[in-house]
Amino acid sequence: KMLRRVLCAVLFVGALPSLAEGSQGHISVVLLGATGDLAKKYLWQGLFQLYMDQVSSGHSFTFHGAALTALEPGQRLMFDVLKKLACPPDEAPNRCAVLKDQFLKLSQYHQLKTAENYTALNREIETLLRQEGLKEAGRIFYFSVPPFAYTEIARHINSSCRPPPGAWLRVVLEKPFGHDLESAQQLAAELTSFFREEEMFRVDHYLGKQAVAHILPFRDQNRQFLDPIWNRHHVERVEIVLKETVDARGRTSFYEQYGVIRDVLQNHLTEVLMFLTMELPANVSRAEEVLQCKLQAFQSLRGLEKNSAVLGQYQAYASQVQEELQKAQDYISTTPTFAGVLVHSDNLRWEGVPFLLTSGKALDERVGYVRVLFKNRAYCTQSETLRDAGHSQCKAKQIIFYIGHGALNTPAVLVSRNLFRPVMPEGSWREAVGRSDLHIFGQPLSDYYVYSPVKERDAYSVLISNIYHGRKDFFITTENLLASWAFWTPLLDSISYQPLRLYPGGVENQHLLDFEMVSGEVAFTVAEPAELLNPNRLMPSDYRTIQSKYRQSPLVSAWSEDLISQLASDMEKTARRTVARSGQFHLALSGGSSPVVLFQRLARHHYAFPWKNTHIWLVDERCVPLTDTESNFFSLHNHLLQNVRVPYFNVHPMPVHLNQRLCVEEDRGAELYAKEIVALVANASFDLVLLGVGSDGHTASLFPRSDNGLEGAQAVVLTESPVKPHQRMSLSLPLINKARQVFVLVLGKGKHDITTLLSRVGHEPRKWPVSGVSPSSGQLVWYVDYEALLG
Amino acid sequence: KMLRRVLCAVLFVGALPSLAEGSQGHISVVLLGATGDLAKKYLWQGLFQLYMDQVSSGHSFTFHGAALTALEPGQRLMFDVLKKLACPPDEAPNRCAVLKDQFLKLSQYHQLKTAENYTALNREIETLLRQEGLKEAGRIFYFSVPPFAYTEIARHINSSCRPPPGAWLRVVLEKPFGHDLESAQQLAAELTSFFREEEMFRVDHYLGKQAVAHILPFRDQNRQFLDPIWNRHHVERVEIVLKETVDARGRTSFYEQYGVIRDVLQNHLTEVLMFLTMELPANVSRAEEVLQCKLQAFQSLRGLEKNSAVLGQYQAYASQVQEELQKAQDYISTTPTFAGVLVHSDNLRWEGVPFLLTSGKALDERVGYVRVLFKNRAYCTQSETLRDAGHSQCKAKQIIFYIGHGALNTPAVLVSRNLFRPVMPEGSWREAVGRSDLHIFGQPLSDYYVYSPVKERDAYSVLISNIYHGRKDFFITTENLLASWAFWTPLLDSISYQPLRLYPGGVENQHLLDFEMVSGEVAFTVAEPAELLNPNRLMPSDYRTIQSKYRQSPLVSAWSEDLISQLASDMEKTARRTVARSGQFHLALSGGSSPVVLFQRLARHHYAFPWKNTHIWLVDERCVPLTDTESNFFSLHNHLLQNVRVPYFNVHPMPVHLNQRLCVEEDRGAELYAKEIVALVANASFDLVLLGVGSDGHTASLFPRSDNGLEGAQAVVLTESPVKPHQRMSLSLPLINKARQVFVLVLGKGKHDITTLLSRVGHEPRKWPVSGVSPSSGQLVWYVDYEALLG
Repeated sequence: KMLRRVLCAVLFVGALPSLAEGSQGHISVVLLGATGDLAKKYLWQGLFQLYMDQVSSGHSFTFHGAALTALEPGQRLMFDVLKKLACPPDEAPNRCAVLKDQFLKLSQYHQLKTAENYTALNREIETLLRQEGLKEAGRIFYFSVPPFAYTEIARHINSSCRPPPGAWLRVVLEKPFGHDLESAQQLAAELTSFFREEEMFRVDHYLGKQAVAHILPFRDQNRQFLDPIWNRHHVERVEIVLKETVDARGRTSFYEQYGVIRDVLQNHLTEVLMFLTMELPANVSRAEEVLQCKLQAFQSLRGLEKNSAVLGQYQAYASQVQEELQKAQDYISTTPTFAGVLVHSDNLRWEGVPFLLTSGKALDERVGYVRVLFKNRAYCTQSETLRDAGHSQCKAKQIIFYIGHGALNTPAVLVSRNLFRPVMPEGSWREAVGRSDLHIFGQPLSDYYVYSPVKERDAYSVLISNIYHGRKDFFITTENLLASWAFWTPLLDSISYQPLRLYPGGVENQHLLDFEMVSGEVAFTVAEPAELLNPNRLMPSDYRTIQSKYRQSPLVSAWSEDLISQLASDMEKTARRTVARSGQFHLALSGGSSPVVLFQRLARHHYAFPWKNTHIWLVDERCVPLTDTESNFFSLHNHLLQNVRVPYFNVHPMPVHLNQRLCVEEDRGAELYAKEIVALVANASFDLVLLGVGSDGHTASLFPRSDNGLEGAQAVVLTESPVKPHQRMSLSLPLINKARQVFVLVLGKGKHDITTLLSRVGHEPRKWPVSGVSPSSGQLVWYVDYEALLG
Repeated sequence: KMLRRVLCAVLFVGALPSLAEGSQGHISVVLLGATGDLAKKYLWQGLFQLYMDQVSSGHSFTFHGAALTALEPGQRLMFDVLKKLACPPDEAPNRCAVLKDQFLKLSQYHQLKTAENYTALNREIETLLRQEGLKEAGRIFYFSVPPFAYTEIARHINSSCRPPPGAWLRVVLEKPFGHDLESAQQLAAELTSFFREEEMFRVDHYLGKQAVAHILPFRDQNRQFLDPIWNRHHVERVEIVLKETVDARGRTSFYEQYGVIRDVLQNHLTEVLMFLTMELPANVSRAEEVLQCKLQAFQSLRGLEKNSAVLGQYQAYASQVQEELQKAQDYISTTPTFAGVLVHSDNLRWEGVPFLLTSGKALDERVGYVRVLFKNRAYCTQSETLRDAGHSQCKAKQIIFYIGHGALNTPAVLVSRNLFRPVMPEGSWREAVGRSDLHIFGQPLSDYYVYSPVKERDAYSVLISNIYHGRKDFFITTENLLASWAFWTPLLDSISYQPLRLYPGGVENQHLLDFEMVSGEVAFTVAEPAELLNPNRLMPSDYRTIQSKYRQSPLVSAWSEDLISQLASDMEKTARRTVARSGQFHLALSGGSSPVVLFQRLARHHYAFPWKNTHIWLVDERCVPLTDTESNFFSLHNHLLQNVRVPYFNVHPMPVHLNQRLCVEEDRGAELYAKEIVALVANASFDLVLLGVGSDGHTASLFPRSDNGLEGAQAVVLTESPVKPHQRMSLSLPLINKARQVFVLVLGKGKHDITTLLSRVGHEPRKWPVSGVSPSSGQLVWYVDYEALLG
């Protein structure tokens, strides 16, 4: 009845086309949590905006607010909100007043608590549509409710509120979507049992921010300028920043469980990062292509490590938590309220370019921005003081997507004038007249082309419009969500006991939260102040490297990090000396997990290592294809070869895979490898062999209780491991003992027992093969970390 | 007699030790060209300084000026110079006056013209020494003469003036040392026939400049600070600059033959470059180790190409040349008076770091400096306006070796205060109090630690002292010289007909000489002004890529550069599409010279190429070891694989080298490769095969007049080439024709005849194997450049 009245009214004012013939069908919007904070603040206004924008689209609408509250009080609460809906400044006041009146009439409150309530809602919609003779186009269910309520509501919608065939269902979900990969997977699995992927619209309201939403269109419309420079050769760094002045007071019960990384970085800043790093699809308006490219960009992210982040907590946070959550005085919160994270994308376009994601509460200013700083590629021959004031190519070049607040206090896109004049969509962005006194990132505003939106629109308005248009690329797909959690979860796990830097909050923070990048890691730039959360933590650097003897040979011992760096340095020294002497360096490397850190260290810190003249050999190999993740060579390839430049010809994987089969005696792989060694290595004497030790005393792939490879003329042998994969290929002990130098690396508590045992026994290779390592004319050095040595 | 008198006088003033017992022996210094400009201006003063410094060293000295002038007038000329020798400000005037008097008495003029003159000089030295009962320590011959006189003088010294066994000979040579690699080799060979390498001291006076001479000691003494940052991860760029305000007026007869690259870059700036890029030897005071490391640094330099340099000529130069060299009005000089050159060192430490070497005449200011600009690694969380004025880590970080002149007007070493406080040798360098109003490279002087020498010393003083000390590392060894010419000569050859940018000279140059780097090349930043040397030159970009048909298949044609970039783009597109479809991209590449430019283009411009998922196969191979420079794989490795990241597993060189022998039928290499293809490539159908065409119509290694590989079931065949190396391995025509896509690349005038012929003939693979390329279900595209197409 009411609907008919409104529709008549609408027809009467004449502003709308005839629904009888032009109708594209009817859309029912159900807002769950209709009287909550988010609904009050943004969602109803967004729905009203949708109505204003689409009232002449041919669709008809009804709006259903829903909550647990009973009908009468709920209705009252909801209409209190609706009455306050504002008319946007760009809307004619008359038209707006009429439309607001219509919108109120089209809106209705429902109590949705029980299964019956949902069935009733469904029936009501059906009845209305039948009465009005309208075709149903679709239904939007907007979940503005706490996540624990999701499953229940989803079940009801799925079982009672699906629209008839031919009409679509769109459910809109608000974060949080889990708090780590596992919980997100669980939640996703539950939702998937109720909804199809294309029915789910997960909101990250950042994607509705105008400057963020314009990143892809900007990249697309400015391809001609960006194609040559949007890569590691031109981009020096990218900063993605969301700074807040407010703190978590009043929200600690939520915040204490999430912290800044889950609250801001995992979602908002990561989404922005993807828009920047992803390859541009041919057509940026095709949601599927966009989502596909975005997902690929996730695959290129380099895994985060503990030292990829600096973390802080504002000083008042602890007492706020104690007070609001009734915790004891000695309760210590490990929740970060500030984080600076260094992210790398490991594809050829972005390799080596630092992406700095920063966010925090209680900082000096409220601002959000993306800053792409380009390398300065120009050399200005004229001295600075004698240069013209014009558009010097020696000035900084940057592109800034200014998300909001801060000095500009408006969304904006800024491009340095010495870069290019950007193409911007004329209807929606206009060139802004800058305040000449303003400096943005070290330069006067007049150094930039500045554009701001013709109409400033709230993020939720933008998103609600995109839900209506079914633009999935403005939302977080399940794959996208899980990829993001897969990326962040290891960091979240590894920092859970990290010390946090305390900061006073506001302008007093000064340089306390400045941080810098060193070899792929970040650290605060100024020394830690006295107030530390965990001041008694023992630092590895408090110990020195110990030089001593072990089994009559030199022993180097230290905490594992120091030990690895010592070993890497010693290897480089050996390599450089050897290359200086003989022009080549023959290095045989072991598999296993211990060398991985070493490989990484070598790749990242040893620029003077003579890789070009180094031959890489394998000490042992598992009988699996080289591309199998279990292969020693595969691991070596991933952690070392991929990142340094050893010529292809100098890489010598073991031929475990010949004639499409693995380690078959008659394929003579062992002999083949031995021949290759003899052909290339003078006297078959490796310059350096790196070994490990198993807790059973095995080394290379020479295992206890087998004579295989312990003596005799065979240089390379096939052996049997007690653990899977059983078949192995290994250098023999006699060959190892011909080496000029042998380093044995032993790491970790798990090796303490065997380390102790070996210190007492003599030469008994049949019991403990490693005890047979004793270079006949070369040198043996043990690198044993404190954990293995001291337990 | 005179000597004895002086020695007595010396003993008398008591400032010197007793020569009778303490003498380390006598040193005779012979200055050839004793009355020339260089001698007048620097060398005599340097010798006097040497005497003042070393008078109490235990050595005794005599100084012999020599020239072609007869004795009397020569003597007069020389003593006019000697009388004017200055006392340095840091020397006590009394002591200096006494020493100057002695120095004059120890100095003598000789006419050195004929063989007899040299014999006489030798006899005189011997007589003097015998009379004084002095042991001979050594002789220094300083060649301050034009290079054409070198050989003659060298022959005389070698045959008549060598000191007796036990004493050393040091000959000091002044540039130019040739004008390209060949002439330098010739000159070096001549000198080598007279002197041993350790006897020759080639002067580059830049190595005596105090700031330059301090680069290595600085790197050594500050290892603790520099070790982590002296590499591509931290250094953003390095500028090595020598700007002059003077022009070449009055010197054009010399300058017209040399130009700025030979005059300044090949020697001075290159030496500085080496000090910056070389690995530090363990002991920087060991000349041999230093020279060794320096030589290695030369090996790492990436070859220069035409576009590695921007070149200019000041406008007045042409008329100066016409006037001074009596050239006709239409004479055009192609000698550059300005050059900006981008140099890359291709080792892991410096890979990707731009080194900009710049020098020119008639510029806005006179100054020499080395500027090492570090990447800004810090993120400052506090907004700029709210930051403390302290040593923010977000300010620029630089190290500057200020060679002289310019705003500072003194040699100096500057280190940004936010970097580190450098260790400087206390006796010789002191912290300078800066003029607070001065800005150096965009920052107030107060942002730096500034050090300047305690005593400013002329470069020649420094060098003469180093000749005395036998410090070979302050001089240019033959190897070093030839390495430098080997590096510069290809550029000099390629630019001899390059157009030069004309510049007005002085401050008016404005932005005209600013240049910028784009993908390893440099170009002026502002458009060329109207006055061009060669304004009618046809630019390749004036033509568009032509799309048409050739042999019934699509034809793409353009100037070679555009064609290559089109082909590279098309390959990337194909690769991305294929990977998106099947996850892998199987690419078979041909050898030969044409693809080299393509490989470079792919490596430098195609960041989105899915290398990780690409398998690289060879179309054909020569039967040589893979490490042979003739090997197709070797070239592919050098120009492509080295610079992109194709996993090791995905690289498939042809097995031409099995069982230590080449392409022996019974080793079954062809079958092995065929099996590998079948195992990995679906249906043995490559996604893309890139072919070339020989002027005889061959393609892959399928040659005319042989049925081998033209039909039948064999996928890979051994063939015979009419040219060396004769033996080849090749994909067969049937296999090639199974490919999904085949691109044929044809470049250059040399292919015009075969291109024309092929456009007329049909399918005749036995005559022209390439005419048999006709993918059965795939697509064939011809990429033929205008030169091949149009002749």
